[in-house]
Amino acid sequence: MNENVLKVEEGEMLEVEVQEDLLEANKRLAEANKKIFDKHGVKVIDVMGSIGSGKTSLIEEIVKKVKDKYKIAMIAGDVTTRIDADRVSRHGVQTLQINTGKECHLDALMIKKALTKLDLKNLNLIFIENVGNLICPADFPLGAHERLVVVSVTEGPYTIQKHPYIFMDANVIAINKIDLAEAMNINVEELIKDAKKINFNCEVVVTSAKTGEGIEKLIKALKI
Amino acid sequence: MNENVLKVEEGEMLEVEVQEDLLEANKRLAEANKKIFDKHGVKVIDVMGSIGSGKTSLIEEIVKKVKDKYKIAMIAGDVTTRIDADRVSRHGVQTLQINTGKECHLDALMIKKALTKLDLKNLNLIFIENVGNLICPADFPLGAHERLVVVSVTEGPYTIQKHPYIFMDANVIAINKIDLAEAMNINVEELIKDAKKINFNCEVVVTSAKTGEGIEKLIKALKI
Repeated sequence: MNENVLKVEEGEMLEVEVQEDLLEANKRLAEANKKIFDKHGVKVIDVMGSIGSGKTSLIEEIVKKVKDKYKIAMIAGDVTTRIDADRVSRHGVQTLQINTGKECHLDALMIKKALTKLDLKNLNLIFIENVGNLICPADFPLGAHERLVVVSVTEGPYTIQKHPYIFMDANVIAINKIDLAEAMNINVEELIKDAKKINFNCEVVVTSAKTGEGIEKLIKALKI
Repeated sequence: MNENVLKVEEGEMLEVEVQEDLLEANKRLAEANKKIFDKHGVKVIDVMGSIGSGKTSLIEEIVKKVKDKYKIAMIAGDVTTRIDADRVSRHGVQTLQINTGKECHLDALMIKKALTKLDLKNLNLIFIENVGNLICPADFPLGAHERLVVVSVTEGPYTIQKHPYIFMDANVIAINKIDLAEAMNINVEELIKDAKKINFNCEVVVTSAKTGEGIEKLIKALKI
């Protein structure tokens, strides 16, 4: 069947959305952001994953466990709403919403601007919740110390295989909503194998924001 | 909390990915594609939705019910694999995979090229499965007669509210994996309300590829 695969090469699509020089510019800005974080002793975690994978719920569960220990902020990327930011702000976390309009990822420039609105001197930990999809955020590091990708068992068995780029870039992968694995007829061991095949060095943690399973392990994996 | 919302305006992001003229060029190509489809009497359905929403499974269920009546092909958009195309080809459907690499949507030019690989004279129905996310495909019509957006209850309660653009563009919305609504504690009536609020004219169908619920209604809504 392989003759029936069309690969879309540069120039064969209507536009080349992401130019090399933009990626380079983003990378430099991300490095500058990281220096600012380090200067203020703030640990930053970029949380990526598809819509509904449970990014916000996992942030909430982590926040509940560590909020007495750290001063926490959350930068939430979303195309139009501030639903996720509001959910996390209930836990006493300072939240900043970035509405990206039609953009499918945050970039380092957006984060640089967001930092001017945060009092970094009074923070130790920032969660950046990226826009919900597994394609666009991969190419745009933001300057975070950890890149966490959340994948839910409800997304079916092929999600990791289908999105190698974002999983390659992750430090930590959370396989989430593990409480639903049986109902979804998902073999979690296979998902872990898929993750390790793409990114042998990443930490893979099995989690459920609902039951609390794996949250402590996730906190450890993220070195919080 | 509203002072803590940053809206990203044109020029405030690292790049403006989608230029107006590209959108116009895409629209013109989409119209040309549609004329080609109409000339050959081929009905075309653009199937959009997040990863794991059940796009492929719904296409499979529809194919099973109508394959004796129509000659069917499927054009599958995916960043790297041809897993979905292989699933549908098992049903005797001619499949063509478009691997978009790092692109997060199909565009009308890709479809125009794909059409040269299909024997349109011997087809009545084409499913185009778009790349799995709810942001990028919205702006890029492909020339299809129907735009179906699939949203799974497993994506949580906010998916429709968070992605108004893609739901605005849909003719038909399938709220899928309805068999899991109770386990997920999802109020389906609220999801239907959200859909109708954004797009009063679209048809909303509640489906389960697993139990077969709503498949006949979906076929009717898509005017197949």
